[in-house]
Amino acid sequence: QNTITATLFPGDGIGPEIANSVKEVFRQAQVPIQWEEHYIGNTVDPRTGSFVTYESMESVRRNGIGLKGPMTTPIGKGHKSLNLALRKELGLYANVRPCLSIPGHKTRYDNVDLVTIRENTEGEYSGLEHQVVRGVVESLKIITRQASSRVAEYAFHYAEVHGRKRVSAIHKANIMKKTDGLFLQCCREVAENYPNIVYEEVIIDNCCMMLVKNPALFDVLVMPNLYGDIISDLCAGLIGGLGLTPSGNIGDNGLALMEAVHGTAPDIAGKNMANPTALLLSSVMMLKHLGLNDQAESIHKAILKTIEEGKYLTGDIGGSAGTSVLGQHFLDYLGIPRYGACIIFR
Amino acid sequence: QNTITATLFPGDGIGPEIANSVKEVFRQAQVPIQWEEHYIGNTVDPRTGSFVTYESMESVRRNGIGLKGPMTTPIGKGHKSLNLALRKELGLYANVRPCLSIPGHKTRYDNVDLVTIRENTEGEYSGLEHQVVRGVVESLKIITRQASSRVAEYAFHYAEVHGRKRVSAIHKANIMKKTDGLFLQCCREVAENYPNIVYEEVIIDNCCMMLVKNPALFDVLVMPNLYGDIISDLCAGLIGGLGLTPSGNIGDNGLALMEAVHGTAPDIAGKNMANPTALLLSSVMMLKHLGLNDQAESIHKAILKTIEEGKYLTGDIGGSAGTSVLGQHFLDYLGIPRYGACIIFR
Ligand SMILES: CC(C)[C@H](C(=O)O)[C@@H](O)C(=O)O
Ligand SMILES: CC(C)[C@H](C(=O)O)[C@@H](O)C(=O)O
Repeated sequence: QNTITATLFPGDGIGPEIANSVKEVFRQAQVPIQWEEHYIGNTVDPRTGSFVTYESMESVRRNGIGLKGPMTTPIGKGHKSLNLALRKELGLYANVRPCLSIPGHKTRYDNVDLVTIRENTEGEYSGLEHQVVRGVVESLKIITRQASSRVAEYAFHYAEVHGRKRVSAIHKANIMKKTDGLFLQCCREVAENYPNIVYEEVIIDNCCMMLVKNPALFDVLVMPNLYGDIISDLCAGLIGGLGLTPSGNIGDNGLALMEAVHGTAPDIAGKNMANPTALLLSSVMMLKHLGLNDQAESIHKAILKTIEEGKYLTGDIGGSAGTSVLGQHFLDYLGIPRYGACIIFR
Repeated sequence: QNTITATLFPGDGIGPEIANSVKEVFRQAQVPIQWEEHYIGNTVDPRTGSFVTYESMESVRRNGIGLKGPMTTPIGKGHKSLNLALRKELGLYANVRPCLSIPGHKTRYDNVDLVTIRENTEGEYSGLEHQVVRGVVESLKIITRQASSRVAEYAFHYAEVHGRKRVSAIHKANIMKKTDGLFLQCCREVAENYPNIVYEEVIIDNCCMMLVKNPALFDVLVMPNLYGDIISDLCAGLIGGLGLTPSGNIGDNGLALMEAVHGTAPDIAGKNMANPTALLLSSVMMLKHLGLNDQAESIHKAILKTIEEGKYLTGDIGGSAGTSVLGQHFLDYLGIPRYGACIIFR
């Protein structure tokens, strides 16, 4: 088996610790991946307009695949948010968040199983804003046929490949008739080509109400940028929060950057307290994306079993174990002999 | 006690039936209100630009108080949504939705007790949209200092009057730095004048996640129009849906139009199957707004007891009773002798 090179951004705060968990699990599970690690600089690279260097962008482009820990955007002017810079520069047009109940982690909801697919490049994130007169400001929401059709196509393709039955386009076209109207129009056109997938349109307010009442009503949801931002977090909340949900950003030609979307948690950084689950689940998404399904499955199962066992959980999910101990138990369930946490998780 | 005249829009679909429940409950409870009923025409009134006639707008303006059932906006061009027309014409700048668990109606959440206050006139609802070039459309989100300060002031005032402790401003100012930034700026300025109320700012995606994980974290939430639309429905979902949540729209000089925000349910209209609870709870809000607190309290208690008893519920909340029977039982708990449903609820 050939080795695949993947870019790794450990990120800030707890990023390096949870990235270590992933590296260790991959190593022990003999995943044929070698990492190319990149760190975020502390000066703006004029070639990217952000703290993300041109070299690290190039690394993802070259490898076509990457994994990213949480990053803090330094406060100040003259540069873009790191997350947005990556999405934009790399053309990561779809953000995919599978949201699956973790049986061992009890929330108010059982058996949640849905996927949000978010347009990741335009909409309310245009960055176009200005003051019209004193006390009156406006933001532009931009919707294009190109980006809408592309993400719609991705959503239906995703549904087909993953054996999902229904795609719901989420919108507010009763108010934003032209912008959200165009988005829906594109979804409808794509839906035509997928006769075996049920297509429906749901207004965002109603969607949120239905999601909290009965998430089983949904399967794959596709939507403009801001709605995706909102609904993907709502859905993460249903199963326990961002610490337990993976995320992937998809670009052209299979380019993909998976990421943990939780914060950098500076208060617990370096204290061996962080929960590596979201980044590990994101790495599982990465493996699936690369077609390494066996390794993906066994790591996924090990994560679920460890959490279900419930003995060695980090503080955020009701335990008191360290990052390294939790990580070690993932290895136990991978069926890999145990050498002691402090040796394995540096 | 003087009689107060209030405008009543029974609305479409199930509107007239549930409005009947309110009228009957008010009559039996000897609420000193006389109704001035207005119906929505079927031609556009050029003076309002919508199907809402100038006379009905005038009625609300003159009475200063109104109650509204659900309305369908007829499809077609050249007129505004009825709801939007009312909000705009009457200057109903704040939409207030108290969201309180109903002990007898089990959902996944207990003891929800929060209030969403939504800016009701601008933001993403500007109606300003256009095609830039083929395949590229834009919508304008407008935020003004005037409307933002006004709704912020209302939210803090509401919190103070209702003995609430915390106001959370919901935003996405990390992305929409200027528009949502101005909204936050206005909230901060108002917060200065309310030193006894805790003020915080919560990003909308995170807010939605926290709401589904633990709604008790919130008390009063204030936000721009679209976020309010989304979050108020999400919150309604926590306690069972729009059939159980009241809503009020507030304008200048105490002008208020309370409304049931659920749909017109044409499929069950006229069949004595509709649930009058949301409109009744909205009428309770109206009574409180008018300072008729005793009547408000006793009607509210009667509603809660009837639902808690659980014997005579409409289909949407798990029973099989008719609108009239449910309404009759509200009267039972008001301590008013029973004459038979068919006589009382026509
Ligand atoms: C950090 C922020 C800019 C980002 C967003 O709004 O997209 C985040 O909420 C996310 O969902 O990845
Ligand atoms: C019917 C629709 C125009 C309205 C809105 O978006 O404001 C509704 O969702 C509401 O919340 O009252």
